[in-house]
Amino acid sequence: MRGAPGGIVVLAGGVGGARFLLGVREHARASGREVTAVVNVGDDAWISGLRLCPDLDSVMYTLGGAADEERGWGRREESYRVSAELLAYGVGWPWFTLGDLDLGTLVARTGLLREGLPLSEATRRLAARWQLGVELLPASDDEAETHVVVPREDGRGSEELHFQEWWVRHRASREPSAFVTRGARPPAPAPGVLAAIASAEVVLIAPSNPVVSIGTILAIPGVVEALRGTEAPVVGVSPLIGGAALRGMAELCLRTIGVRPDAASVALHYGARSEAGILDGWLLDPADGELSPALSQAGITPLVRPILFTSLAETAAIAADAVALGA
Amino acid sequence: MRGAPGGIVVLAGGVGGARFLLGVREHARASGREVTAVVNVGDDAWISGLRLCPDLDSVMYTLGGAADEERGWGRREESYRVSAELLAYGVGWPWFTLGDLDLGTLVARTGLLREGLPLSEATRRLAARWQLGVELLPASDDEAETHVVVPREDGRGSEELHFQEWWVRHRASREPSAFVTRGARPPAPAPGVLAAIASAEVVLIAPSNPVVSIGTILAIPGVVEALRGTEAPVVGVSPLIGGAALRGMAELCLRTIGVRPDAASVALHYGARSEAGILDGWLLDPADGELSPALSQAGITPLVRPILFTSLAETAAIAADAVALGA
Repeated sequence: MRGAPGGIVVLAGGVGGARFLLGVREHARASGREVTAVVNVGDDAWISGLRLCPDLDSVMYTLGGAADEERGWGRREESYRVSAELLAYGVGWPWFTLGDLDLGTLVARTGLLREGLPLSEATRRLAARWQLGVELLPASDDEAETHVVVPREDGRGSEELHFQEWWVRHRASREPSAFVTRGARPPAPAPGVLAAIASAEVVLIAPSNPVVSIGTILAIPGVVEALRGTEAPVVGVSPLIGGAALRGMAELCLRTIGVRPDAASVALHYGARSEAGILDGWLLDPADGELSPALSQAGITPLVRPILFTSLAETAAIAADAVALGA
Repeated sequence: MRGAPGGIVVLAGGVGGARFLLGVREHARASGREVTAVVNVGDDAWISGLRLCPDLDSVMYTLGGAADEERGWGRREESYRVSAELLAYGVGWPWFTLGDLDLGTLVARTGLLREGLPLSEATRRLAARWQLGVELLPASDDEAETHVVVPREDGRGSEELHFQEWWVRHRASREPSAFVTRGARPPAPAPGVLAAIASAEVVLIAPSNPVVSIGTILAIPGVVEALRGTEAPVVGVSPLIGGAALRGMAELCLRTIGVRPDAASVALHYGARSEAGILDGWLLDPADGELSPALSQAGITPLVRPILFTSLAETAAIAADAVALGA
């Protein structure tokens, strides 16, 4: 069905994953490979009866050339007429402003889901418009949303917030004690995900948030087993440079799950395949070069090279080096 | 709960009903009465996962001062960015263009319905924004949508179209053989509808389509019994002048159900209360003055007076005369 041999499979979150995928697509076009993106759906939410899939849409808009690159999220030339109406009616999340163009995607998706289509099929239909040149797969068709355990504001005990509420409303200011997945049942991998991993030439882990983006994909039963079982090498790109994430709140999330926020600790958290983990190789920045021996020692082949996405050509070169590291 | 004694209850459809309600509200303010509008929901539909309630929204926008009076439907200063996206995705009804402001109402309503609120409560919350000065009740909380039986386009037998598809897509050009209601179960009157009728000072039948607007309300089990049982007089305003409807397709709908499209036949179709019908009085235009003896003879008190809504003051005067006719 998909994941043709010779293909590159990328596990990715939202904006960072989307930008990495631009480079992967560029490299894949040059080298005649196909690309399958397996995208995190843990950030998804129902908002005013509409299905929000921020990571899928970030990838779709970015690869489709419709993303607002300056702002870093959403659509270019966006407007907010519908959201102003929702605010006037006093419904929805007043702290979550959906653009009109973005709402078009949400309404279209919701209509397809309400017709009974699984998210993967709805995603395929939406993506067809954009001619992405990349197969876009949600990690799961199931609703399994990330919640964040934080102290209650009155200081008495803790409470759970939806990831979006924690991230967008509170700007991650309330210190989390845990991330948990909530849904009717454990999520299953979407059709095609495990097959794509099994038949891939190489699997890349995008420099997305290791906890709430990549971690959420890896938590889907069957995914880690597929990564461990595939003949394809699995190579990741560090989401941290010099101990800091380039975007988002990877450090905070890593500290929450007890992982030191540095380029090597993330790789060791994913683990070497030889040690019941998933990684064969890892790209880290020269700023973190001194951490590479620890990776070699743990059975993960390090490649030290600049990993900043300074241009499309450079991102494609990073992707090419990641593919080459696995070969 | 509602329908305070001294209140005017109006059974109404969309645009025509909304304009009549403007006059009723004007008269009610001047005379210290309360108004409850019981609005048709037979035109409602799910469109791309959103709940469309055209008649409720026409009434809400018109009484709220937000309607596009020139065009005759929808919101003023409307835009179509979301609909353009739906079209680009190839979803929804390409022949049904929803404005962005209108979509705000649909998204807000759908969010409330998805939270589990009945339509009547969702309507109450939406209407609160507009301070209508009229209590707005959907005729039913149940989904019971009007479908139209038309000949198949290949001439072989007949098929059912949703009312919106027949009306908006085909502009009522496919000759109907019947109107039918489709839903999971027979619709029940929304909370407050029967009580409002029972405790009303007067019940007015707006000059809305007698088949697909008023007829759909009357088809809800319990409504006709309430109209027959109330101590309030029931007075209607003819939707036809000189055999022609001022808007819509009342003639075609009436012919379909075997009623002659003239001002008296509509009243006789509703029937006199003394003859197992619902009407005590009926307003008809001087153009139809010669039909009034037939009404008197049937037990319906006629009032011949101009019934064109030429101004708000004139519409209020029509409403006042309708109320007075019942008294």
